[in-house]
Amino acid sequence: MTEALLDNIKVILVATTHPGNIGATARAMKTMGLSRLELVTPKIFPAADASARASGADDILASARIHDSLAEAVGDCHLVFGTSTRRRSIPWPLYTPAEAAGRAAGVQAKKRNIAVVFGRESSGLANRELELCNAMIRIPADPQFSSLNIASAVQIIAYEFRVKLLAGIEDAKDNESDDIAAASHAQIQQLFEQLERCLVELNYLDPQTPRLLMRRLKRIINRSELDIEEYNIARGIIEAARQAASKNKRSPD
Amino acid sequence: MTEALLDNIKVILVATTHPGNIGATARAMKTMGLSRLELVTPKIFPAADASARASGADDILASARIHDSLAEAVGDCHLVFGTSTRRRSIPWPLYTPAEAAGRAAGVQAKKRNIAVVFGRESSGLANRELELCNAMIRIPADPQFSSLNIASAVQIIAYEFRVKLLAGIEDAKDNESDDIAAASHAQIQQLFEQLERCLVELNYLDPQTPRLLMRRLKRIINRSELDIEEYNIARGIIEAARQAASKNKRSPD
Repeated sequence: MTEALLDNIKVILVATTHPGNIGATARAMKTMGLSRLELVTPKIFPAADASARASGADDILASARIHDSLAEAVGDCHLVFGTSTRRRSIPWPLYTPAEAAGRAAGVQAKKRNIAVVFGRESSGLANRELELCNAMIRIPADPQFSSLNIASAVQIIAYEFRVKLLAGIEDAKDNESDDIAAASHAQIQQLFEQLERCLVELNYLDPQTPRLLMRRLKRIINRSELDIEEYNIARGIIEAARQAASKNKRSPD
Repeated sequence: MTEALLDNIKVILVATTHPGNIGATARAMKTMGLSRLELVTPKIFPAADASARASGADDILASARIHDSLAEAVGDCHLVFGTSTRRRSIPWPLYTPAEAAGRAAGVQAKKRNIAVVFGRESSGLANRELELCNAMIRIPADPQFSSLNIASAVQIIAYEFRVKLLAGIEDAKDNESDDIAAASHAQIQQLFEQLERCLVELNYLDPQTPRLLMRRLKRIINRSELDIEEYNIARGIIEAARQAASKNKRSPD
């Protein structure tokens, strides 16, 4: 079945306030053939209102996984899209829904998990959550009234994923040439930790106030979507720098 | 205003049963910059439920025109699209939302009214109503579960109309929003050279055969599309690693 192409796409809702929106999201997903809903600390769930708005997509609610953190939810994902309708200036690659779906079509040919993350109704995603994303999808809404209902945002993105993944099966073949697996989310987190230790040892990073610099470095690294071999090269270089730094500690000049 | 391109697009709802769907439709339209809502024999309207679901798009509800028949509503239109998610065999041209929006973009240049008509929640459009349409738009839903909420259907189509009608105009604006300049090609070349010297000093790179590793590192760095600030951070880190390496050379242990 071609529909199986959509099976590795997760929709993740973060800290949703209104259970009705969870139900409407399940319905929006199901109309487009998506089935994997994951919820990070939903305020109220399960809920009668969620089931009512799902109107027939109850199976998606029933199988929804619940997590304590977004980090946990994206742990097994190789490509994580955040979503936003606001024009904040953020140094992430910014995709339209169609571009993101095209990108996913390439990755998906290799059967990897892809997540699309939707933030709180009121305030979207927090900075620490944005840092888990490889790229952002911005739905091109009217700047004067950009408050899409969350299920409507899911609907648009699910629609584009369906269109591009099912229609774009041919296109995806183009991307098969790069067949090295992407580094996993967990590996990239290890890389961040190793890099942070290294920068402290190089006296480049003040361990008391590591946040801002590390945030920028994480963004750069997330954006570059390392494959396993590149990940290993990066680890090797950081380790070489660490050894150089630690030798200095033992033999100061 | 460029948004004026969307002003001649009407959304027409026929015999809507649930007023909440009218409100949600108004909201979906407004997020995409559409403003002309027309209602054919709505069951209950105005209604508190419509206003509640409009959440901020009340102006569209307030200015909605009400008609006794679809024929009356489309009287001033030059292009009328019906909508359907069902695969019925109908002798109308059948467009995807993207194709219809592309078609509309052509017509719109001539400032003519275009209508997109949405039928009853339960049974869609009747035959006599279909006959008023020039073409049909079918949203590509999952055949196993094609029951899109009416406001979700409006959302997808309004989104495609916005994307296609404003194409090119929005792109220009996007580039203004990320206001930190990208690092220049020349700067990135300097970064590569600095990195290569550093890796040799760290004994990580064999200066006799630097080619393959450097090529991979260049690919990673190019992919991440550094801005000026990020470029400066990268230079600072490489310089710190170089200093650590060169101190070792002077004081081997």
